[in-house]
Amino acid sequence: MLKLNPQEIKKDFPIFNQKINNNRLVYLDNGATTQKPIQVIDAMSDYNKVSHGNPHRGAHQLSIRATEEYDLAKEKVREFINAKDIEEIIFTRNTTESINLIAYSYGREFVKENDEIVLAISEHHSNILPWQRIAKEKNAVLKYMYLNEEGRIPLGEIKKKITNKTKIVSIAQMSNVLGVIHPLSEIIDYAHNRGSIVIIDGAQSTPHMSVDVQHLDVDFFVFSAHKMLGPMGIGVLYGKKELLESMPPSLMGGDMIEYVYEQEATFAPLPHKFEAGTQNVEGAVGLKAAIDYLQNIGLDNIHKHEKILVEYALEKMLSIPYVNIQGPKDLNMRGGIISFTIDDIHPHDIASILDSYGVALRAGHHCCQPLMRYLDVPATSRISFYLYNTKEDIDQFIEGIKNVRKWLGYGS
Amino acid sequence: MLKLNPQEIKKDFPIFNQKINNNRLVYLDNGATTQKPIQVIDAMSDYNKVSHGNPHRGAHQLSIRATEEYDLAKEKVREFINAKDIEEIIFTRNTTESINLIAYSYGREFVKENDEIVLAISEHHSNILPWQRIAKEKNAVLKYMYLNEEGRIPLGEIKKKITNKTKIVSIAQMSNVLGVIHPLSEIIDYAHNRGSIVIIDGAQSTPHMSVDVQHLDVDFFVFSAHKMLGPMGIGVLYGKKELLESMPPSLMGGDMIEYVYEQEATFAPLPHKFEAGTQNVEGAVGLKAAIDYLQNIGLDNIHKHEKILVEYALEKMLSIPYVNIQGPKDLNMRGGIISFTIDDIHPHDIASILDSYGVALRAGHHCCQPLMRYLDVPATSRISFYLYNTKEDIDQFIEGIKNVRKWLGYGS
Repeated sequence: MLKLNPQEIKKDFPIFNQKINNNRLVYLDNGATTQKPIQVIDAMSDYNKVSHGNPHRGAHQLSIRATEEYDLAKEKVREFINAKDIEEIIFTRNTTESINLIAYSYGREFVKENDEIVLAISEHHSNILPWQRIAKEKNAVLKYMYLNEEGRIPLGEIKKKITNKTKIVSIAQMSNVLGVIHPLSEIIDYAHNRGSIVIIDGAQSTPHMSVDVQHLDVDFFVFSAHKMLGPMGIGVLYGKKELLESMPPSLMGGDMIEYVYEQEATFAPLPHKFEAGTQNVEGAVGLKAAIDYLQNIGLDNIHKHEKILVEYALEKMLSIPYVNIQGPKDLNMRGGIISFTIDDIHPHDIASILDSYGVALRAGHHCCQPLMRYLDVPATSRISFYLYNTKEDIDQFIEGIKNVRKWLGYGS
Repeated sequence: MLKLNPQEIKKDFPIFNQKINNNRLVYLDNGATTQKPIQVIDAMSDYNKVSHGNPHRGAHQLSIRATEEYDLAKEKVREFINAKDIEEIIFTRNTTESINLIAYSYGREFVKENDEIVLAISEHHSNILPWQRIAKEKNAVLKYMYLNEEGRIPLGEIKKKITNKTKIVSIAQMSNVLGVIHPLSEIIDYAHNRGSIVIIDGAQSTPHMSVDVQHLDVDFFVFSAHKMLGPMGIGVLYGKKELLESMPPSLMGGDMIEYVYEQEATFAPLPHKFEAGTQNVEGAVGLKAAIDYLQNIGLDNIHKHEKILVEYALEKMLSIPYVNIQGPKDLNMRGGIISFTIDDIHPHDIASILDSYGVALRAGHHCCQPLMRYLDVPATSRISFYLYNTKEDIDQFIEGIKNVRKWLGYGS
C-alpha cells in the first residue's frame, strides 16, 4: 500500500486554489464538514448532464439510469461498511435524521415505561435530544455514562450504567469534541448480553477509519456523506434487517407502499419502507464517488496519516504553556480531532483571529453542551484533520495561535 | 415580456445533447422530475469549488460564506412565493417530508378525537398516508372530496365535506395525474370560515405558475426543488409564522436548540427549530439558481407556453379514436399534464415502446391508487410539459403512440 501524499491529494480539491485573507487556506474544520475532490463534484454534474431521472418509477431510459445509479451507490455503501444485505442500507438526509428515525420508529415502538436508554455524556445533541423525547413520552429513564480524565468511558461505568433494564445504548464511535475513540466492542458485548440493542453514531469515525458493521455486531450504524468528501443532503442508516423489518415506517408517501386505499395502506418491503418520496439520486452518486475516492487512497492509510498529524500537532501544542488540550494524550485512543483552550482567550476570538491567517477551525460548544458542562468549560476551539492536511497546515495553525495572545495583549 | 423560446432554452440543458435509442430525447416526464440547466449545475459545482463550509456554526470564511449562500437561498424562496417573513420558510428534503412534518408536528399536536381531516380523492400518496396515520392515532375522521367528470371538485362537494368539525384540509393545487387545477380560493375561504387550516401541496403547480401564499391566504404550502429545475434532496415547507411557532420540533439535534441539559432542552426560534443537523447548502444554492432561471424566463410565460403545448397535444390526441384523455378538456382548468389510456394497450407497454422512440413518459398509478380506483382504471400513461418542450416534441410523441398499436398488432 502506497503512503498517502497529502500534497498530491490537495490538487484534487479545487477549494484550495484560493487565498483566504491573503493566506494559504488551511482547512481544519473537517469535523464539521469536509471539502470535495473534483471527482465527486464532476460525478454529480455528469449525472445531471447525462442521466437524470426519477428512479424506481419509470420505464424510460433516464429513469432506468437514475435507478441504476442509485442502486450502485447503495451497493457501494453496503460494501464500504460491510453490511450483509443491501436492504439494510437506508439513505436519509443526514446523521441527525438517521438517529431521529431510529428514535421515532424503533424507540416509540419498543421502549416501555421504566426501560432505560444509555448514552455517553460526550454525545452530540443529535444523539441526545431524540432520546430525551422518547424517554419523556414513554416514562423511560435516560442515563449517561461519564468519562474518565482521559475522556474514555471506563469499564466500571459501562457496567454501572448498562443493566438488564437497558433497551437502547446509543453512542458515537468517536467524540466530535475530544477525538476519543470509545471502546465499542466492550460496550456492544456488554449491552447485548443484557438484552439491549446498540446504536453507533459513526459521523466522525466512518470518514477516517475502516468500519465493519458485521464484525462490530452493531444493531444500527449512522453517518453523513458531507463529512467524508461527499455532498450535503444525504446520510446513511444501517440497521440489522430483522430490526428494520420490525419497525413502523417513518416518513410516508410515494415509493414506500404496496396498496393504498382511502382509509388504509400496506407498505413496501425494505429498504423502500423507509424511503418515502423522490430520493436524492445525485446525492447518492456523489456519496458513491466519495467512497471510491476514499477507497482508492485506503481508509487505513487515512487513519495512519491523521495519527501522524495528531502526534505532530499535539507535540507542538503541548509545548506551548498557555494551551490546554482536552481528551486523551494516548494516540491509540484518539482520531484526528483536537479540542483545546488558550488561557485568558475566548475560543471564538481564537477562531476569528486564526481566520485572518487563513486557518479554518471551529469554536463553541460543538453541539455538545452536556459535555461542556461536564468538562467545566464554556466552549473549546477545535481542529480536525483529513487526508488533505499537511504538517505545513499545522505549522501555519501553530504560528497563528502564537500570535493570538500577542494580538490580545498577552505575552507569549 | 418576451415570448418564451423553447429551442433557445433547450440549449441551456446539457441532457438534450444526446440521443436516446438513436432518437432525439423528448422528455415528457416533468411531473416526476425536471432536467437542470447548466446554470443550476454550475452554481452547485461553483459552491463546492469555492465556498463550501458548514453554515451557522463557524467563525471562519468558508462557514460564513456557506451561511450567506444558505440565507440568500431562503430569501429567494421567500420572495418567490411571496411569504411575509423569511422565518416562515423551512428547508426540508422534499415535498413528502414537508407534508409528513406538518402531519407529525401540527397534526399530532392539534387533531383530537372526532376531528375531521379532508383531502381530495386525487391526492398523491404522500398527502394521504400521513393523514391516515394521524386519523388512526387520534381517532379522527379522514374524508375525501370526490371529483366531477371533468376532474374538478364541485362546490357542492366542498360544502358537503368541509364542516365545523374539520381541522385540516390538505389538497394539491394541481393534480399530478389529471393536470386539473383545483379551485383553491373557494376551498380556502370555505375552510377558514369553518375554523380549519388549509395545506396546499404545490409540488406540481409551483414550478409552472406564479404562487403568492399571502394572496392565497394558505396556512401551509409545500414543494420540491427537483420538479422546478433544481436539485434532488431539498424541498420547502412554508407555514404561517404563528402556526409554525405553535408546533413542536420535528427532527431534533444540532442547530435547533438553545440550551441542552442531560434531561431536557430548550429550542431555538424559527426557522432553526425545524432544521436540525447540517443543512443542505449546495441544494439551497441549486434551488436559488433554479428560481433565478425561472424568474428570468417568467412564470407567466412558462404557464402560457405550457397552455399552448397542452392545447396542441390535446387536439392531436383527441383526434385519435383509440386515445382516451383523463381530466378536464377546458384549458383554463388545467396545467401541463395529460393522462391518457390507449384502447387494448397497457400503459407500461406504451411507455416502453415510446422509449424506443426517444420519448420519456410515465405509466402507472402515479402514486395515486385511490384516484385510479375512483377513475376505474388500473393505470394511465402521462405526459407532462415544461419550458423546454416544443411542438416538435409533441409530434414525435404522437408519431410514437400511433406506432404503439401497430407494434402490438392493432389497426391504426
